[in-house]
Amino acid sequence: MDIADWRKKIDELDCRLVELLNERASAAKEIGKLKRNTNLPIYEPLRENTIFENVRKVNRGPLPDKELQHVYERIIDVMRNIQKIEAVPKKESEVEVDKQKS
Amino acid sequence: MDIADWRKKIDELDCRLVELLNERASAAKEIGKLKRNTNLPIYEPLRENTIFENVRKVNRGPLPDKELQHVYERIIDVMRNIQKIEAVPKKESEVEVDKQKS
Repeated sequence: MDIADWRKKIDELDCRLVELLNERASAAKEIGKLKRNTNLPIYEPLRENTIFENVRKVNRGPLPDKELQHVYERIIDVMRNIQKIEAVPKKESEVEVDKQKS
Repeated sequence: MDIADWRKKIDELDCRLVELLNERASAAKEIGKLKRNTNLPIYEPLRENTIFENVRKVNRGPLPDKELQHVYERIIDVMRNIQKIEAVPKKESEVEVDKQKS
């Protein structure tokens, strides 16, 4: 395989990665909605540590754990932002707009 | 589904994400090896822009493009490091060791 072939493979992998990242974002949003009615904080360091442990455990390489963790720090950071938006209690007027939309 | 269920789903998604990230790293390594014998630089801004365009094109949300790009900046950064290691011409002594290993 030449460089162009490998790049084609990378583009295909990226399609699947984007899909999975979005599935993960949907799940994070759902958790955000559930947190809206509880006292659970958005930032939960224990849960974040569990995620890092999990990804290290399933890592078969060639990505070193350190580099994988580097990617995951960003993923978690982005997901936390997504969740934060959902967790904010909505004003009554916004709920009304949501209802009209659906 | 409660928070624990969504977290289980996230852990499953992470397993698949880690696998895909490693497949992507393998491809980046192969490109690094091919670059070893060429004058192609590791940092190729045009190729990196193409990757950003591709991921935006296939993005169906709920992740906003900006947040997706944020994750991809880190992925590309890590992959560039992986590729850099492969692209360095090996010393003859190292090639000898590699042969003995295989």
